[in-house]
Amino acid sequence: MQTWEAITSRRNVRAFDGRPVPAADLDQILEAGRRSPSSQNWQPWDFIVVTDRAQLRELARVWRGAAHVAGSAATIVVIGPAADNEFGRAQFDLGQATMSMLLAAADLGIGTCHAGVTDLELARELLGFPADRPWAFLISLGYPADRPLTPVRNPRRRPLDEIVHRGRW
Amino acid sequence: MQTWEAITSRRNVRAFDGRPVPAADLDQILEAGRRSPSSQNWQPWDFIVVTDRAQLRELARVWRGAAHVAGSAATIVVIGPAADNEFGRAQFDLGQATMSMLLAAADLGIGTCHAGVTDLELARELLGFPADRPWAFLISLGYPADRPLTPVRNPRRRPLDEIVHRGRW
Repeated sequence: MQTWEAITSRRNVRAFDGRPVPAADLDQILEAGRRSPSSQNWQPWDFIVVTDRAQLRELARVWRGAAHVAGSAATIVVIGPAADNEFGRAQFDLGQATMSMLLAAADLGIGTCHAGVTDLELARELLGFPADRPWAFLISLGYPADRPLTPVRNPRRRPLDEIVHRGRW
Repeated sequence: MQTWEAITSRRNVRAFDGRPVPAADLDQILEAGRRSPSSQNWQPWDFIVVTDRAQLRELARVWRGAAHVAGSAATIVVIGPAADNEFGRAQFDLGQATMSMLLAAADLGIGTCHAGVTDLELARELLGFPADRPWAFLISLGYPADRPLTPVRNPRRRPLDEIVHRGRW
């Protein structure tokens, strides 16, 4: 897919058609996350990939808004570092890695949706990540149940003229 | 460009060849930022686009690592919200919008590099953004002075096997 098509076709997909995502496609998505830039190249991320249905159902309980995880073909859990760096860039860099993976997925026709984690203890119990890691985010993945990814003509966003300032605010 | 080529070709570019970036290309890059996902679609970003050479030279003084801004064809200043949201997602979402713009730029053969802002007062004086906005990041843009963007075979990153955990940590 052309880059611009992937950028414009990415949308939140919360219902999936049940088909698995090929392992090679999952690895390509993870590779996109791995290649992301970060503050002084500190790469403050680990990714846990969950594809087991029973485990996905359990994982869907870590936040009230994470129900879509249960029916996903796979969910990537983005784990942040134990501590932020001197510039406070952990969340910014996790956001960059996440966006790379969302676009790499869209490129393969795979829909995605974010979810936060409020029950970090349950997430840790299910996934076994170290106790000193305070940040976890979920990205659910799968083929859309409703319709394939195609460019979104009018995204529900603030208008460009409102958010862009030329030269000065 | 194909999405995967854009993802693998993006690299930090700090030296630019002096050619301007067409206004339509800049707008496409900004549109990629505008379309980014964010927590409950709050879109906590504003973008200030600087293309004036004298202003770019001044802007390069906002951080000791921002020298590359002076020679950029354009620099997009990403301004965050006045306050974080209840989930603390401001930086994560600014990172997502930034990554969208980096990849949209790579797709057009345009190199990019981040810079932080330590002298927020100087940035505010040069750009006129409101005093209650505490977050600003720079993305410098331009055509690479050394060689065009092509896929990076071996990015300087932690190996995939080290960062990816299957099923459990």
